[in-house]
Amino acid sequence: MAGKLFAMGTGPGSSDLLTIRAVNCLSSLTILYAPAGRQGGNSLALSIVQPYLADHVQIKLRHFPMTADSQQKQQQWDAIAQEMATDVQQNNIVGFISLGDIMLFSTWVNLLTRLRDQITIEVIPGITSFAYIASRCAFPLAMEQQSMAVISCTASAEEIESALIQHQSLVLMKVTANFALVKQLLIKHHLIQHAILVSNAALETECICHDISALDEQQKLPYFTTILVNKLW
Amino acid sequence: MAGKLFAMGTGPGSSDLLTIRAVNCLSSLTILYAPAGRQGGNSLALSIVQPYLADHVQIKLRHFPMTADSQQKQQQWDAIAQEMATDVQQNNIVGFISLGDIMLFSTWVNLLTRLRDQITIEVIPGITSFAYIASRCAFPLAMEQQSMAVISCTASAEEIESALIQHQSLVLMKVTANFALVKQLLIKHHLIQHAILVSNAALETECICHDISALDEQQKLPYFTTILVNKLW
Repeated sequence: MAGKLFAMGTGPGSSDLLTIRAVNCLSSLTILYAPAGRQGGNSLALSIVQPYLADHVQIKLRHFPMTADSQQKQQQWDAIAQEMATDVQQNNIVGFISLGDIMLFSTWVNLLTRLRDQITIEVIPGITSFAYIASRCAFPLAMEQQSMAVISCTASAEEIESALIQHQSLVLMKVTANFALVKQLLIKHHLIQHAILVSNAALETECICHDISALDEQQKLPYFTTILVNKLW
Repeated sequence: MAGKLFAMGTGPGSSDLLTIRAVNCLSSLTILYAPAGRQGGNSLALSIVQPYLADHVQIKLRHFPMTADSQQKQQQWDAIAQEMATDVQQNNIVGFISLGDIMLFSTWVNLLTRLRDQITIEVIPGITSFAYIASRCAFPLAMEQQSMAVISCTASAEEIESALIQHQSLVLMKVTANFALVKQLLIKHHLIQHAILVSNAALETECICHDISALDEQQKLPYFTTILVNKLW
């Protein structure tokens, strides 16, 4: 059997939010690359897929830089890509996993650009954290004629405010980067009653807040914190 | 066992793009409500979930209006919601299915508003068509600091153009409503080389176009046609 690389989104945090296609693929892997957490070794993405892996699979925990914005990080990506390409060329069925959906805000793009001309790749989508949150809270993302913006709260205040004005529905990711600002903008534009905040979606530590106005602006929120806004809900 | 309503996104069109959670739920249903197609009886969503249904499940094909913008349509929604509520109150495990993700551009919201205070509801997310398309074409939706807008091409020319200027990544849905305009805007803003068009994603009739400039503006595109734009790809 010829080697191949499967890149998969694991969904937000619960093993049963994987697709059937991803599960079938996971059981056929001979090698799985999983992101190692900062504290060395723990991988949330790995724990999500663990129930579906074959006994004989070789797990390669690797540290994947969050960006590729320096020569040193570029070299780290080059080295991981080279290792994956070699594994595939040796006829392994190789997997790479990433939280949520693999084509949205995923570092996978750094591997894709390096590998797409070298080896056979198949990409399998995953449930995004915001789709899960919308279902979990029965809070519509966008309805009928609404437009939706998905933005990171690492963006500038102007960019966040302009999106809040322009779109009827918003997903604000990485809220912890700028919570005080975001809360003030939601109050200013009378949107705080049309918003929900969820931390650690689909994890055991999941926390849902329907009253953002009650949250202390200086509160340290978990890294995985998202706000949904829908002006008609 | 007490009655309950499960609302599920089926994903874009392939049975193995359902989540494990959705599949487990489907096999437990005693009644499934599925949207009947315009030609009477055919239901794409039903064909996607069919492999996972129990033999004894009762299938109720119903015509669901696309909107609730008239008194007549409101009454149709009222009647369907009432029928569902009665089924749940009689201790049935009832399912409702919708293409793609159930909380994004789905008519499910018309049932949710009517039923959420009456019966127990659990919502299960699905893979959106644009997440599938991004994976299928290895075309990133949004990377790192990019913001993404999801808009319907039934919107005004001004709204579409403003989103094309403001966001680095865009999902243009319902392209067929306004293809000539969208193509002209993509050319005007030098984005046509950064865009792909996909019709009937994940279906047997799937069609992928990497060169939108070659498409006739007057061409009648399939109803399920989506364009992805990424200015950095």
